[in-house]
Amino acid sequence: MGRWPEFVQIKEVGPRDGLQNEKQRISTADKVHWINTLSESGVKEIEYSSFVHPKWVPALSDAHEVGRRIRRNPDVRYSALIPNMKGLELALEAGIDGASVFMSASETHNRKNINKTINETYPVLQEVIQEAKNAGKHVTGYVSTVFDCPYEGKITPEQVTRVCERLAEFGVDDISLGDTIGTAVPSQVDQLLDEVLEQFPHEKVIMHFHDTRGMAIANIMRSMEYGITRFDSSIGGLGGCPYAPGAAGNVATNDVLYLLNGLGIDTGMDEKKLQEAALFIQSKLGKTLPSKSLAYAASQS
Amino acid sequence: MGRWPEFVQIKEVGPRDGLQNEKQRISTADKVHWINTLSESGVKEIEYSSFVHPKWVPALSDAHEVGRRIRRNPDVRYSALIPNMKGLELALEAGIDGASVFMSASETHNRKNINKTINETYPVLQEVIQEAKNAGKHVTGYVSTVFDCPYEGKITPEQVTRVCERLAEFGVDDISLGDTIGTAVPSQVDQLLDEVLEQFPHEKVIMHFHDTRGMAIANIMRSMEYGITRFDSSIGGLGGCPYAPGAAGNVATNDVLYLLNGLGIDTGMDEKKLQEAALFIQSKLGKTLPSKSLAYAASQS
Repeated sequence: MGRWPEFVQIKEVGPRDGLQNEKQRISTADKVHWINTLSESGVKEIEYSSFVHPKWVPALSDAHEVGRRIRRNPDVRYSALIPNMKGLELALEAGIDGASVFMSASETHNRKNINKTINETYPVLQEVIQEAKNAGKHVTGYVSTVFDCPYEGKITPEQVTRVCERLAEFGVDDISLGDTIGTAVPSQVDQLLDEVLEQFPHEKVIMHFHDTRGMAIANIMRSMEYGITRFDSSIGGLGGCPYAPGAAGNVATNDVLYLLNGLGIDTGMDEKKLQEAALFIQSKLGKTLPSKSLAYAASQS
Repeated sequence: MGRWPEFVQIKEVGPRDGLQNEKQRISTADKVHWINTLSESGVKEIEYSSFVHPKWVPALSDAHEVGRRIRRNPDVRYSALIPNMKGLELALEAGIDGASVFMSASETHNRKNINKTINETYPVLQEVIQEAKNAGKHVTGYVSTVFDCPYEGKITPEQVTRVCERLAEFGVDDISLGDTIGTAVPSQVDQLLDEVLEQFPHEKVIMHFHDTRGMAIANIMRSMEYGITRFDSSIGGLGGCPYAPGAAGNVATNDVLYLLNGLGIDTGMDEKKLQEAALFIQSKLGKTLPSKSLAYAASQS
């Protein structure tokens, strides 16, 4: 049987990837209170917002103000999604420790999402990555649709590694591989990681699963058997799937933590504090979040 | 990396384990229509009801009538939950191919659930098993709380194997090991199967996971790496957790099938027909079932 690591690092992406897919708007004051609570959970990294133009992501149009108002815990890396130099400028003003750049392994998804071909995207990201590194920031390269694309279907591991190689050349510190539409099963994780880990040491690879079909926890287990120790997740499973109203989005941090605690893997995180943060945002959204372990815990309190 | 089997057999327990935990009553006519639809899904076994006294499980008080009215597909084994000789008599009249007897690995859970100690339960089950075998029926022994008990906490693999050994002596054809409160993570599956598979060939072992904390699919993956090829599941994730209002119950057949199809494992089952049966019962219950892959599929149709 495969073994798993002693320590796993979770990046909380709820304030960015979660909220950007929620219809109900959250006030800036509530976001700040919520991110401050998350900052006390022991989590090591929080992606607190996105500096994509507000026209595209209106739910996060207060990224600058949120960045200025949150209380910074020195043990937490605060990162944000950065699409271009204008976004980077604003983010540096607002305060970031990490910049997340993004593109797709699928040509069509990249065009629909970024309005550029993959080849047109590279120079934009290259400049952002280099400037962010010059400013002393950690840079993560998100690659989305690494298993399946809602427009093109299957994406090959070679399509993914081609993009990863370029991002690595530009100087990213690590790459986050996204199952954007939550279709993958563990055999697809095998196929992808067999290729990617030929190129990159496992410490530089983050897996970013969506739980749209309930497969994310099994995929995380599988990734850990490959030595992967870093995962993105969203508190309570906050956020939906832009391709399917009502369907689940990011894997829930609470479910990931339940798994890791059960396996005896250290995360440094406090389940109770996380639950507090999840119940807070759940009450503000006025709907039940999809995390099953959160629903269970809430029923017991 | 662990490998997985070529064929997996699913037992649909929604009409029994699912419905018995639902507050909303379903009419006999609707149950019959629904089970008939399930019978066309390619599933090889359906647990269609329970012959426990209606005082304990009022939702299934029409077990006898359901058994008489459903259309029998010769490729499906129709089984029912049988607590004692009176239940067996009624079930044989109504028509069963399989009898499922049940007890707990936990002394306290057994007493709370069956109102007998483990030692008092054995002779009752022994008689039912022998009479069911004499009548030419397949007999499955359910063992519940095989990982954790809501009253006693951790249950050791030895407590489980002790019960399994007795049931095997009495003549059950196979045993179904239940994560009754849905607490297990894959390392607990390892610990249990390391012991159980010393005693029983993997063909005789069925795993019965609840998805209360979202771990069931990962646990099924793990079980398949041990050679387990038989799983119980409930359509749409129908049914709750009697210990936690609002929390999820049995793992959803739809999610299990999504996983197995993705891995290229044959089940003989038709996803569309299953979805039809899930949407039918969802509409009758008037609430969204917990299966994530069902929610996704429903959003697309």
